[in-house]
Amino acid sequence: MNKYVLGIDYGSLSGRTVLVQIDTGEVIAECTLEYPHAVMDTALPDGTPLGQDWALQHPQDYLDVLYTTIPTVLKDSGINPADIIGIGTDFTACTVLPVKADGTPLCFLPEFACAPNAYVKLWKHHAAQKYATALNEIAEARGETFLKRYGGKISSEWEIPKIWQILDESPEIYAAADYIVEAGDWIVWQLCGILGKNTCAAGYKGTWSAKDGYPSSDFYKALDPRLENCVREKLNFPIAELGKAVGGITAEMAERTGLKAGTPVSASIIDAHVAMPSAGITGPGQLLAIMGTSTCHILLSNEEHLVPGMCGVVDGGVYPGYYAYEAGQSCVGDHFAWFAEHCCPASYQQAANTQNKNLHAYLTELAEMLQPGESGLLALDWWNGNRSVLVDFDLTGLVLGMTLSTKPEELYRALIEATAYGTRMIVDNYVKNGVPVKKFVATGGISQKNAMAMQIYADVLNMPVYIADGKQGGALGAACFAAVAAGKEAGGFDSITEAAAVMGKQKDTFYTPIPEHVAVYETLYQEYTRLHDYFGRGGNDVMKRLKAMRTQIRG
Amino acid sequence: MNKYVLGIDYGSLSGRTVLVQIDTGEVIAECTLEYPHAVMDTALPDGTPLGQDWALQHPQDYLDVLYTTIPTVLKDSGINPADIIGIGTDFTACTVLPVKADGTPLCFLPEFACAPNAYVKLWKHHAAQKYATALNEIAEARGETFLKRYGGKISSEWEIPKIWQILDESPEIYAAADYIVEAGDWIVWQLCGILGKNTCAAGYKGTWSAKDGYPSSDFYKALDPRLENCVREKLNFPIAELGKAVGGITAEMAERTGLKAGTPVSASIIDAHVAMPSAGITGPGQLLAIMGTSTCHILLSNEEHLVPGMCGVVDGGVYPGYYAYEAGQSCVGDHFAWFAEHCCPASYQQAANTQNKNLHAYLTELAEMLQPGESGLLALDWWNGNRSVLVDFDLTGLVLGMTLSTKPEELYRALIEATAYGTRMIVDNYVKNGVPVKKFVATGGISQKNAMAMQIYADVLNMPVYIADGKQGGALGAACFAAVAAGKEAGGFDSITEAAAVMGKQKDTFYTPIPEHVAVYETLYQEYTRLHDYFGRGGNDVMKRLKAMRTQIRG
Repeated sequence: MNKYVLGIDYGSLSGRTVLVQIDTGEVIAECTLEYPHAVMDTALPDGTPLGQDWALQHPQDYLDVLYTTIPTVLKDSGINPADIIGIGTDFTACTVLPVKADGTPLCFLPEFACAPNAYVKLWKHHAAQKYATALNEIAEARGETFLKRYGGKISSEWEIPKIWQILDESPEIYAAADYIVEAGDWIVWQLCGILGKNTCAAGYKGTWSAKDGYPSSDFYKALDPRLENCVREKLNFPIAELGKAVGGITAEMAERTGLKAGTPVSASIIDAHVAMPSAGITGPGQLLAIMGTSTCHILLSNEEHLVPGMCGVVDGGVYPGYYAYEAGQSCVGDHFAWFAEHCCPASYQQAANTQNKNLHAYLTELAEMLQPGESGLLALDWWNGNRSVLVDFDLTGLVLGMTLSTKPEELYRALIEATAYGTRMIVDNYVKNGVPVKKFVATGGISQKNAMAMQIYADVLNMPVYIADGKQGGALGAACFAAVAAGKEAGGFDSITEAAAVMGKQKDTFYTPIPEHVAVYETLYQEYTRLHDYFGRGGNDVMKRLKAMRTQIRG
Repeated sequence: MNKYVLGIDYGSLSGRTVLVQIDTGEVIAECTLEYPHAVMDTALPDGTPLGQDWALQHPQDYLDVLYTTIPTVLKDSGINPADIIGIGTDFTACTVLPVKADGTPLCFLPEFACAPNAYVKLWKHHAAQKYATALNEIAEARGETFLKRYGGKISSEWEIPKIWQILDESPEIYAAADYIVEAGDWIVWQLCGILGKNTCAAGYKGTWSAKDGYPSSDFYKALDPRLENCVREKLNFPIAELGKAVGGITAEMAERTGLKAGTPVSASIIDAHVAMPSAGITGPGQLLAIMGTSTCHILLSNEEHLVPGMCGVVDGGVYPGYYAYEAGQSCVGDHFAWFAEHCCPASYQQAANTQNKNLHAYLTELAEMLQPGESGLLALDWWNGNRSVLVDFDLTGLVLGMTLSTKPEELYRALIEATAYGTRMIVDNYVKNGVPVKKFVATGGISQKNAMAMQIYADVLNMPVYIADGKQGGALGAACFAAVAAGKEAGGFDSITEAAAVMGKQKDTFYTPIPEHVAVYETLYQEYTRLHDYFGRGGNDVMKRLKAMRTQIRG
């Protein structure tokens, strides 16, 4: 008798549920709901205006995803809910909301319906920047050791700056909140009635570690005396380990969705990290590059090392029992999109139109005909700063080698190559610091669409590049965790690596390094490294000075 | 009774004659002839194919300019030929042809009509590169002092490489030639029957100096034993000083053109350098920037200094009695054209079309709205190598400071600014080496068309930028020299500075530095200097290594 799980993937604009057969990883049914309120970045539903850099969401949308998509997949598949043995979710993070002790979001209460700080702060809400800046200064001055786990800097997108903003701007909301929770944990709470903090979001976004817990109350007090007891007052709920069941579907939720009450609900996980089991990552030394507008690199290891310039290392942050290292490149797909939008001449657009091709496809076709090194160009991929390994957002882009015969496809290829060198810098940095990288798997849009880019990555890394079968994205990974929460006895798995091996998907095709290309790219990478260190490690801080000048002039 | 002169400007594609009133510099009549054979770069008139990088012209075209344009301006103006007291010419250089002792070009002889090396090698004929490369190696190895006058390098466009190519590829043509002459000198010879070598072309393109003459026969022998007596065998005719009459119009030429026989014909001058009197340059310390696809900077001085990185310093090279220094930027208008053609997005082209504007005008309008420093961008203007002050054609372009919000107009402005920094580098280098620069005058297309660029130059240089009234271009300058050849007694002038003061033209408007901009650009120029020295003076030779790789791969 086949067993099934549900994976629910909460993205930035929609939620999507898949019903997956466990022994094959096959998706039997799927349903997506676009959030009715999408991202609120100019006003609340009632018209209350939002400031610059705000990005909010409405928690009702998350519930609607459950109420709409689960009944649909059940109906469409005809599967008996009794054969669905687990539910898993993944969610954007840090995406937080203040709630009452019973789980009611403060924005549901009439008195706070017009208060922006009562709503969900989406991961890309950037209005807490000043709190992040102050936090980093204070933490550095105090020599807080947690900074080292995050490459020396906490982002404005993370939990403490967002909580601090609520407190500072709306102390009445802070006071009224019994908890401030990740939306991923909140949705699990709604499903099973139990609140826990998943180790993934806690570790990567919440400054928590299994060994040291949260930062000290002295530290919180140094930020703002009113924050001193923040952990005790607002984060006072247990940690939920990944792959474990937090609880079972409540009677009420069973009624609203058609699921069977008591079905295990696994701890939530961040929507990026959930790609690991989806992509069939089965053990240490395997690195997954999630390539979209930016790239996130997650690597499993048996050991903890303090690798400089990483975004974070979290014990059990993705797979229980393993350290998961995260690194990032701030600008990958965005890089190519910038080029296509701002630098590609009318004649190319016209040719692409005539041939009925997307501009990227057209540029790629031309760029593919170039040999490595043929353009004479070299770029530093810092259009959006450098996340790893320099962790410096004041760095900017560079291209050199242009002549009067330089063509757009040469520049386009140089930008792609630059991101490959940036990835190699991250891989080399892991290896140099004692964390082996034995296998490289890519997922996300670029890995699926751009074979030339993937061949360049294989040649630059001098490693085969495997490609996840990305069709099911995060939802399949959430389903893997659901199967682990269910456990082997119930028809699932006892570990996420087992689940990933069976349910995860890699494509049959992969990219093998071409020896002649490897040799040329090795030389180019050495040139990249030299420029990287000159401009990135203090040889010449011209980028920072120019950026500071730009900021000052723009006011 | 008004007196007049004729100025004849031989450009790359056409010849143009102006009839100018001496006491006002006013052009009374003008006529242009496009060369019927234009530039022959793929085949001779009979179909004989040409190799890569060849660029030839047909001397008959030069004669046709005389036979067509002079009668036309005489007829159109109704001026009595007796009131025309001098004829002046300027010509592209080094533009050379092999001729018989009577002036007949070898290509006019039936036996050589199909021989490419018998034709005129236009200045931009680049097929003698291998001879230039060998020449530079040999000259450097021998410690030839003439190299110092030319910034350490002889160009493939200059005289010796072109002569050497004739000898090496077509020894029978070399043997048949009684002289190898600059086309500018040849046309004067046709006008007045006397062959002389103008000091301008001799000095800037012919490796000749007033003090040292031509390089030694030992040096020529070191190049190729057959060249040992090149000077005696092929260049054995007198030097013709600028502003002097070489001779008078011959009876035959008088008949064919309608000019009065005996009318003084001045020595020819290079078409770039002739802009000096046109632009009203009247004495030492005045620098003229001739801004076109590239920029040529000519500066008059009372003293000779060996300024490193200059293209040449020639005693009497432009104005008799003064040293004239020449420097250059390889890529100015070409730079902006490259950007517009290769990097400007379809949306901009569309907006420019909609507004019925040239793309440069559209980009300039947007770039004008930016404050100095606002873009955060900085470029090195080396898309075509660096002529001065580094004299290194293996350098390539660089831009840094890009972010995801960088716009095309910001890049466009950064490229313009880079050329201004390059100009300042040249000016600073003169001053540092003892040659004062007291006044900066610009001429050429960009100076006339782009007020934003000229304001940026004024701000970067922290000097007023004066603009030549460029309407008459080289022809007016040739007319100035004609007036000097005629002499004061005949109604002309006794010196070119007097002629330039009366006949030369500057616009009433000029560009004054804006103090706030000067301060910002001073900072940016320091940044430019640091990058310039790092990439240009051996800090990191990455550009050369990449270019060598590119050349190797392209084969």
